[in-house]
Amino acid sequence: MNATEITILEEIELDNPIFIEALPGLGHVGKLAADHMIDEFEATKFAEIYSPTFPPQVLVKDEGVIGNMINELYYLKDVGEDNLDLILLVGNTQSLSPEGQYLVCNDILEFVKQYDISRIFTLGGMATGQPIENPKVFGAATHEEDVELLKEAEIEIRSNDGGIVGASGLFLGLAVRQGIHGSCLMGETPGYFIDAESAEAILNKLSFLLNFEINVDKLEERAEETREMIAKAQQMEQDLINKANAGNADDLRYIG
Amino acid sequence: MNATEITILEEIELDNPIFIEALPGLGHVGKLAADHMIDEFEATKFAEIYSPTFPPQVLVKDEGVIGNMINELYYLKDVGEDNLDLILLVGNTQSLSPEGQYLVCNDILEFVKQYDISRIFTLGGMATGQPIENPKVFGAATHEEDVELLKEAEIEIRSNDGGIVGASGLFLGLAVRQGIHGSCLMGETPGYFIDAESAEAILNKLSFLLNFEINVDKLEERAEETREMIAKAQQMEQDLINKANAGNADDLRYIG
Amino acid sequence: MNATEITILEEIELDNPIFIEALPGLGHVGKLAADHMIDEFEATKFAEIYSPTFPPQVLVKDEGVIGNMINELYYLKDVGEDNLDLILLVGNTQSLSPEGQYLVCNDILEFVKQYDISRIFTLGGMATGQPIENPKVFGAATHEEDVELLKEAEIEIRSNDGGIVGASGLFLGLAVRQGIHGSCLMGETPGYFIDAESAEAILNKLSFLLNFEINVDKLEERAEETREMIAKAQQMEQDLINKANAGNADDLRYIG
Amino acid sequence: MNATEITILEEIELDNPIFIEALPGLGHVGKLAADHMIDEFEATKFAEIYSPTFPPQVLVKDEGVIGNMINELYYLKDVGEDNLDLILLVGNTQSLSPEGQYLVCNDILEFVKQYDISRIFTLGGMATGQPIENPKVFGAATHEEDVELLKEAEIEIRSNDGGIVGASGLFLGLAVRQGIHGSCLMGETPGYFIDAESAEAILNKLSFLLNFEINVDKLEERAEETREMIAKAQQMEQDLINKANAGNADDLRYIG
Repeated sequence: MNATEITILEEIELDNPIFIEALPGLGHVGKLAADHMIDEFEATKFAEIYSPTFPPQVLVKDEGVIGNMINELYYLKDVGEDNLDLILLVGNTQSLSPEGQYLVCNDILEFVKQYDISRIFTLGGMATGQPIENPKVFGAATHEEDVELLKEAEIEIRSNDGGIVGASGLFLGLAVRQGIHGSCLMGETPGYFIDAESAEAILNKLSFLLNFEINVDKLEERAEETREMIAKAQQMEQDLINKANAGNADDLRYIG
Repeated sequence: MNATEITILEEIELDNPIFIEALPGLGHVGKLAADHMIDEFEATKFAEIYSPTFPPQVLVKDEGVIGNMINELYYLKDVGEDNLDLILLVGNTQSLSPEGQYLVCNDILEFVKQYDISRIFTLGGMATGQPIENPKVFGAATHEEDVELLKEAEIEIRSNDGGIVGASGLFLGLAVRQGIHGSCLMGETPGYFIDAESAEAILNKLSFLLNFEINVDKLEERAEETREMIAKAQQMEQDLINKANAGNADDLRYIG
Repeated sequence: MNATEITILEEIELDNPIFIEALPGLGHVGKLAADHMIDEFEATKFAEIYSPTFPPQVLVKDEGVIGNMINELYYLKDVGEDNLDLILLVGNTQSLSPEGQYLVCNDILEFVKQYDISRIFTLGGMATGQPIENPKVFGAATHEEDVELLKEAEIEIRSNDGGIVGASGLFLGLAVRQGIHGSCLMGETPGYFIDAESAEAILNKLSFLLNFEINVDKLEERAEETREMIAKAQQMEQDLINKANAGNADDLRYIG
Repeated sequence: MNATEITILEEIELDNPIFIEALPGLGHVGKLAADHMIDEFEATKFAEIYSPTFPPQVLVKDEGVIGNMINELYYLKDVGEDNLDLILLVGNTQSLSPEGQYLVCNDILEFVKQYDISRIFTLGGMATGQPIENPKVFGAATHEEDVELLKEAEIEIRSNDGGIVGASGLFLGLAVRQGIHGSCLMGETPGYFIDAESAEAILNKLSFLLNFEINVDKLEERAEETREMIAKAQQMEQDLINKANAGNADDLRYIG
């Protein structure tokens, strides 16, 4: 079993696509934005990614059908004024372990490099810890010229102020070592609920940077669905915690 | 040392057996049900499974004889009206680490696939956190048609409500990727004691689904034995915790 | 870098030696007993064992000279009435990680098997949590006939009462899978100090079982030295904890 | 992906260089001292070291440009009266996992051994937990004769008093196994702030031992810059913690 197992669903050819990472994180901001793009632009899934470094569980989806912990790659062709090709990385999880984070991000980057990706955007949230009106978008990038592009989009530039943890950071770190340019867009969010407004702020900036238009009418609806799903899941949370503890077999492993 | 070491005790031939997973978990529900089937139907052990991802310890069994942390495979032929062959996975532990869970479940599934398994059932408990009368059985499955079969057995179908953690979830997740069908049966249980009633509820549903009859008279007796074993083990628990801490050598590792 | 690196210091030939494990654990009981045997019988070190699964540190020994975290193998020839050859495993640590425990114990067992070991004894402590007079020795073994031998030595037999965690358990678990016989001797100890009395109780039983005599006059002296070393080390403990935290770089890793 | 990836930036030849380790740790003492040497003597970076065992994140540096978690090797030729060549190991992190610590230190030591290193110095802090005036420098070494050299520099010799955790300890432990001599210099520090005074104390001892002179005027300035960087980073800390938690997907991984 490799650290990363990539199943290709469709052989595709793309024209120097832009790679957009939006795995789940703070306030669900990046994931919500990318899932919305996938829906609105009717993106096509072309690869599925599994890893033994993901949480050791499955999910119960609609009507009792189970689903794996998974990352997925979608593609889009000829998006916006500039006819850009895009690859989007979404999913329901990131690796549990620090080393798993490195291995999986590295393997995914090696995989998408086959399509001659031209640039990377990683999407995430940045916690404020308190309610915000009109969430700002913060940014950082692999190279000074990319920071300049972010400034043109009126993105707030972070400076010398900490780290970017997880896939949103690692993809940029791995990219810069290979001379690939990339930027991270982080939407301000309280962090404790599914934040459609922050996802919309990110989509505004990304559509400016990549020169496309996107209808965000259904974004709040999507956020609401996600909230309901989570509320339901949280009812089950105690079950999960208990079962995880039992999986660790703290009191059962004494039994012969 | 491989992640999983499988020792074959008997070369067997089975006719498209059904694979039933029942490793220890919440309320001991699945394990109790499967151990009871093994006893009542006089199943034969044909393989032992060891892993360095199991807890690093042994157990003191009857009269001072030690036993390994282990998973075991039993088989049964011609069970019930439909003359079904079964493989049962039982044991005294699951892997400690998340990645170990994936590796061991994957290796076991690859092993039992050699016997042309036709379907998978995973058995577990679902925590209520409070006392229940007449525990329900909840279910989820890899495919819609399997969910329909669960409904026919009057199993409550979970929907969009969280995850199934550990081996009971992972076997289904690994199976669905290979086109193998499977279902999880989860008996309601407070979760804090060995629950014979919930195990009986699971056996009722499983016997309906697989069309066999099983005498459950000795199930409560078995649960009682397990309870006594655990009570005794808990007296020793502080010892174990202390010794584990000492194994981590928090205060002893300074000694040259 | 392998999980276990064994450096052979002397090529030796032994006559079906008995393998005695006494790595540090609860109350220092096993280690104290084995270190005393090494001193009294002037055992010879013939191999050193290193592992990246040991704690990531060195020790400051006498007069500022540093020493590695290490396991060591000593041998003795013609011990006692029965002219037994012995191999003793001692050291200042056990593996930190559960999987490391399995890998290192397995590699050491494979190594000592080359010398045609005839039996295994593992020595440890068993926590009472409160002061004891005349500590008992508890035992468990891989086979019923070995339990009988323990009874002849008036060792209290444990039964169905929990686990034996760490190297003292794992060596027996790994041995039984290969048909090697072994026993564990556990001296009662409060667990919170270096317990010479419990180590003496273990040596009494071991000398009966292996038919040798050993002078225990210096055992309390040795325990006292160990206590002083630990008292000094505990003054430094906060330093270690702080430094370990800094090694995890919780607040420093933000620095570019 | 190997545990350690070393990118050579410049092929160099050195004359039996002394290897100086100064990765971040307690009070930033070693790192501050080495970074100051690199600046004052205008050392040249000749290799970069990456590892999947480092924290899974990137840093936001000046003006929104991101930087990887990294270790770096610098060299200096003809330093001081004795025309010594030096290799300095600095960086912004150490491995997160215990085993990663061993693997990365081992790989780096193997790498610098190619340059025929003659000796090793590791630089770190030693926590007092309370304010100190005129911080002392404590030392330990691989061999008695090295301890004698430390005494000549009026370094306080530690004795039998605990461990040296992390890279500062491990490099010496790995070295001694290969017959390479080394010493650790530890500057007293409260441990809870960036300690220029302690770094200066270390530089005093090191310059005595290696017979060079170094201007420490800018050391306090450098410490002040570091403090500001950390203060800013700590404002972002809650963000990081929250995001790390989200990366662990505690409440988001239930989403299908």
